[in-house]
Amino acid sequence: MRNLLAVLLTVLLCITGCASKDGAADPLSAWNDTAAKDSITEFVKKVTTADTPDFVAPEDRVAVFDNDGTLWAEAPLPFQAAFVIDELKRRAPQEPALAADPMVQAALKGDVAALLAGDRHEGLLRVLALTHTGMTTDEFNQRVTDWMATARHPRFDKPYDQLTYEPQQQLLNYLRDNGFRTYIVSGGGADFMRVFSQRVYGIPPEQVVGSTGTTKYELRDGKPVLVKTLDYVFVDDKAGKPSGIHEFIGRRPILAVGNSDGDQAMLEYTTIDNPRPSLGVLVHHTDADREYAYDANPPSSGKLVTALQAAEPNGWTVIDMKNDWKSVFSQ
Amino acid sequence: MRNLLAVLLTVLLCITGCASKDGAADPLSAWNDTAAKDSITEFVKKVTTADTPDFVAPEDRVAVFDNDGTLWAEAPLPFQAAFVIDELKRRAPQEPALAADPMVQAALKGDVAALLAGDRHEGLLRVLALTHTGMTTDEFNQRVTDWMATARHPRFDKPYDQLTYEPQQQLLNYLRDNGFRTYIVSGGGADFMRVFSQRVYGIPPEQVVGSTGTTKYELRDGKPVLVKTLDYVFVDDKAGKPSGIHEFIGRRPILAVGNSDGDQAMLEYTTIDNPRPSLGVLVHHTDADREYAYDANPPSSGKLVTALQAAEPNGWTVIDMKNDWKSVFSQ
Repeated sequence: MRNLLAVLLTVLLCITGCASKDGAADPLSAWNDTAAKDSITEFVKKVTTADTPDFVAPEDRVAVFDNDGTLWAEAPLPFQAAFVIDELKRRAPQEPALAADPMVQAALKGDVAALLAGDRHEGLLRVLALTHTGMTTDEFNQRVTDWMATARHPRFDKPYDQLTYEPQQQLLNYLRDNGFRTYIVSGGGADFMRVFSQRVYGIPPEQVVGSTGTTKYELRDGKPVLVKTLDYVFVDDKAGKPSGIHEFIGRRPILAVGNSDGDQAMLEYTTIDNPRPSLGVLVHHTDADREYAYDANPPSSGKLVTALQAAEPNGWTVIDMKNDWKSVFSQ
Repeated sequence: MRNLLAVLLTVLLCITGCASKDGAADPLSAWNDTAAKDSITEFVKKVTTADTPDFVAPEDRVAVFDNDGTLWAEAPLPFQAAFVIDELKRRAPQEPALAADPMVQAALKGDVAALLAGDRHEGLLRVLALTHTGMTTDEFNQRVTDWMATARHPRFDKPYDQLTYEPQQQLLNYLRDNGFRTYIVSGGGADFMRVFSQRVYGIPPEQVVGSTGTTKYELRDGKPVLVKTLDYVFVDDKAGKPSGIHEFIGRRPILAVGNSDGDQAMLEYTTIDNPRPSLGVLVHHTDADREYAYDANPPSSGKLVTALQAAEPNGWTVIDMKNDWKSVFSQ
């Protein structure tokens, strides 16, 4: 009886107090206890400890995350490119002019090289125009919603929004629990990501910075609509990322997480000569078994060469996916 | 003696309890108790009362405010135009090429018509280029800070940031106290407004949507800087306002406050066919004694004609500055 009581008491104490006794349950349990994890938790402790020189006021705790390859997978194609191809497949049978377009044919043949050729990926822009313009923002949202509900990743046979990284989902929550505002700063389309960013990442639309095409305001039958165009396109990649951060957030982040050379400028802008303490983090895809392994020769976009070289001199943390992450996907 | 005690007692009770007895002290005390004020407080009560069909979740309580003529004065010139002229005056003696520019000469002569001519105000853009580009964002911030600390309004002889409207300052606080996020959505420059938006309005930089020129990211002596350009300019006015709201916020507001035809599209986008309850508000400058009186023939920008006509059919509240505001300026 005394033993039973002791057990009950222990259970009861545990329910109410155990977690907070020797620290709460690990909020980063999907991370192995390696130097990468330590560098992040030490940084967060540093900037949140009051009355120290490194303390950063909550309003300045801005963390920016790339999306493709950083928060979710980006192979064999960035998921927005998969959306483009699926949309073209869906529409081509009913739309002869669309089906006759050489770039549509390249996309439907899976000729990724043709689409990604050129510095600004002109082929991709062409099929982006065909799938991302000429409709209202509401119509576009509906198409992305429909696609996300039905499309499945070719290798993992899951909806794309179930291919987010569990360690990163935990990191987003951990940062928010420590007073950070988490932003996406991605080359992907802002309108595309905002359809699911709140549901999938807990990141509201106003904290999603991405590539954008201008919209055209109209009253249609007396009702306001915004029609998507590519009249001017802001490409939120490479040097565009610091510009996008300045334009949309107006503050320098103190934490930046990316996975490719396209994120290098964002990490520089965050960590070099920043008057506040700061941290840069790169995800290195080293896990062909559980996900993918690539850097100089990625399956699609997302090359990681110069940013990796810049990591050591700049003190950036490099996440070795295979060794630093206990699990990879969230579900 | 008994009288004195009674008075003391009343004062004492008032200090501790008066305000909260029959409702808290009026958060909109600078507003007269007119229909305009009622329409705002009734709207706020409606959307914040839980378990009613009109309840709006806090994350969707987005309120957008024009700045010039809505939150602070805009006569005899929009204050950013005053900054431009003062900057040209400051620099012209040392910079002969600048001093020789015809548009600089127009600005220094006070030839506002020349600057504002054309649909896109080309003259203004020219002097904007001269005063807003070619320097880093940090350098620009410093120039705006210096100007704000020294420049004074020609009529009121006060620093420009002391010419914000007290009733609107109260409205911003009242909305935030009721779970709204308050945004500026202004034709003014985002970089210009962000220098003082937090201090002056309690609005953080990430909630300031304004006109923007692209910035160019560079490493200078190994340090990241953003250089201001006008390579592409987003003009956050007229039909640009709904586009800007979509691009920067990604949600439809439920409350929009403006004062000119430049705000009409923003009010339409907020109030017409919005699935949530919504309110549009226009400030009508009717008070030549305390501020200015204008609509069809404004002293500079900010014409109010078509938006005023659209107010009644759309159910927008029109603030008659003279009759609806008990006080005008904050300080």
